[in-house]
Amino acid sequence: MAKYIDPYGSELVKDYTKLIKDFGLESYRNNFPEPNRMMRRGIVFAGRDLEIILKCMQEKKKFYVLSGIMPTAEKIHLGTKMVVENVRYFQEHGAKTYVLVADLEAAATRGISLEEARKRALNFHIPAYIALGMDPKKTIFYFQSENKGVIHLTYEFSKKVTLNEFRAIYGAADPARILSALTQAGDILFPQLEECMPGIIPTGVDQDPHIRLTRDIVRRTKEKKFFMPSSIYHKFMPSLDGSIKMSKSKPDSYIELPEDQKSVKRKILRALSGGRNTLEEHRRLGADIGKDMVFEFMKQHLIEDDKELEKIYDDYSSGKMTSGELKQLAIQKTASYMDDFGRKLEKARKGISSLNFVRF
Amino acid sequence: MAKYIDPYGSELVKDYTKLIKDFGLESYRNNFPEPNRMMRRGIVFAGRDLEIILKCMQEKKKFYVLSGIMPTAEKIHLGTKMVVENVRYFQEHGAKTYVLVADLEAAATRGISLEEARKRALNFHIPAYIALGMDPKKTIFYFQSENKGVIHLTYEFSKKVTLNEFRAIYGAADPARILSALTQAGDILFPQLEECMPGIIPTGVDQDPHIRLTRDIVRRTKEKKFFMPSSIYHKFMPSLDGSIKMSKSKPDSYIELPEDQKSVKRKILRALSGGRNTLEEHRRLGADIGKDMVFEFMKQHLIEDDKELEKIYDDYSSGKMTSGELKQLAIQKTASYMDDFGRKLEKARKGISSLNFVRF
Repeated sequence: MAKYIDPYGSELVKDYTKLIKDFGLESYRNNFPEPNRMMRRGIVFAGRDLEIILKCMQEKKKFYVLSGIMPTAEKIHLGTKMVVENVRYFQEHGAKTYVLVADLEAAATRGISLEEARKRALNFHIPAYIALGMDPKKTIFYFQSENKGVIHLTYEFSKKVTLNEFRAIYGAADPARILSALTQAGDILFPQLEECMPGIIPTGVDQDPHIRLTRDIVRRTKEKKFFMPSSIYHKFMPSLDGSIKMSKSKPDSYIELPEDQKSVKRKILRALSGGRNTLEEHRRLGADIGKDMVFEFMKQHLIEDDKELEKIYDDYSSGKMTSGELKQLAIQKTASYMDDFGRKLEKARKGISSLNFVRF
Repeated sequence: MAKYIDPYGSELVKDYTKLIKDFGLESYRNNFPEPNRMMRRGIVFAGRDLEIILKCMQEKKKFYVLSGIMPTAEKIHLGTKMVVENVRYFQEHGAKTYVLVADLEAAATRGISLEEARKRALNFHIPAYIALGMDPKKTIFYFQSENKGVIHLTYEFSKKVTLNEFRAIYGAADPARILSALTQAGDILFPQLEECMPGIIPTGVDQDPHIRLTRDIVRRTKEKKFFMPSSIYHKFMPSLDGSIKMSKSKPDSYIELPEDQKSVKRKILRALSGGRNTLEEHRRLGADIGKDMVFEFMKQHLIEDDKELEKIYDDYSSGKMTSGELKQLAIQKTASYMDDFGRKLEKARKGISSLNFVRF
């Protein structure tokens, strides 16, 4: 698998290495049982306190996994898809699973009313999480605004952090962000009020500040004994045009769920390719696969089977497969993924009324 | 009544005048119907937007009065007693009445758990408020932690205020204080989610910053139409030793509810007196009533009847009544007040289980 670890070669590997060093993360050593696609392929690259979670899985001890839904637009970002897939991994490996709707944070930072947040979560986000593989029978869904424990922790934690610490961690401090960050700490630790057990938060590495804040709070909380939250990070999905991270300001640079076939096709056809200038050159040199965003997209999202991916890698890097052929394959695979997602989403939507939302 | 307006004579009158000017308050003009003891005697001295409330009372239009309980020690400060008596005044004049237990703020700023806050409120604070004359059948009691509307407003309001504004209003900003202040704004405006009507907050003038913050928030909230909260302020109860405000650091300088007779007696006997050095001098000059803290205490708290107070004033200021006699009278009146309060507290405690706490 080492061949296709990183789309940016040494440059980006160095960046992630720096990140690990600067923030005191642990490298992910791919020692988890039955690693998922992202773990096997180096997309999951780091975390915090991973050993304790590994031990829970090995010794069948209780632990939890938690993730939050920000109920904004009715679209799933591919970064969010990776988070959900990691949450699903831990759910399938015995974790008690919490998925919360961040309706209070949406009110604080986006001006979205609780009612609107609820509507969006029920109509789209929760069904989408189920479509991505969360087991609705094994997942505890809740709304922040209905979780007294989380709200209580938020207020308790407010006196454990100074403004200067907020500034040191987040670069800035304003009332809405402070409230939002404290509420996230409340969510992250809330399951431990229910049951004393370690827990893990899968997320993009850009969310590490919340984990650090929460860990600082745990260190200072003497009246309750919390486990330090563990975390596990995936790399950013690079933009289809080759820039480091997808950007909302360039909608053609990323694909979301759901997305119609025409738009997917357009984006993939325009994506940065590793194909050579002429067919002759391509056959002779093979694709410059390190910069091919379509291959990266397939590796990260479309192809589960390592052997199938390896075959594509070999064919494409040897020049046997052309860039056009790779793109057609990606378009087909995306279309069938979208169809499948759409069907599952509809099914989950229909079942939503039977879900139990827990009020704590 | 003008004779005994102020214990500090022109000096303190000037201070309160400065306060009114500096913070843009309105003077209270004693034009409310059936003014209570504090309104009649110049203890209530200022407010904000009082006319709209006067109009509601005159025209029998809907309005509300709101106050909060901070469930710390099981004692009622005399300043709090004045707040409750003002709340009662508006309740008796038709206001829809809200009394909240600030359990979330107690968690944020004092580290008191929700459970402990609830226990204290049920065991002492709410019965004490009823003993002070709140009508339990006409008062909506709630806990902040059970009021989703308040919590929602708190989060919504967090994006309407900057850190610099917090600093300008409160002199400092830290996460717990920010959260607490935003929650107070949520409480103050919450009744208007229930019903569109103006409301008044009776409080000590030291709490005006919360009112200003809330009014700033109302100005900026375009998506909901709130009335500006009105407020009404009483002066500080001066310390028994003659300093401007009672201080927690000098427990002998103030009386609380409840307090045992022995301790009351000691404090009153030690209080700063307006009696002269010799009996002869006292008879000749009369008491220096402006600096007599026992007379001030009687005026502010012990004697409802203006005629009775005026008689004491005349006897004492003419030298007919000695300082010793005044103190004995105060000791007796306090004892009978404490007895009465104790009986009412016990009765209210027994009725507490039949109270309905509203979950919003």
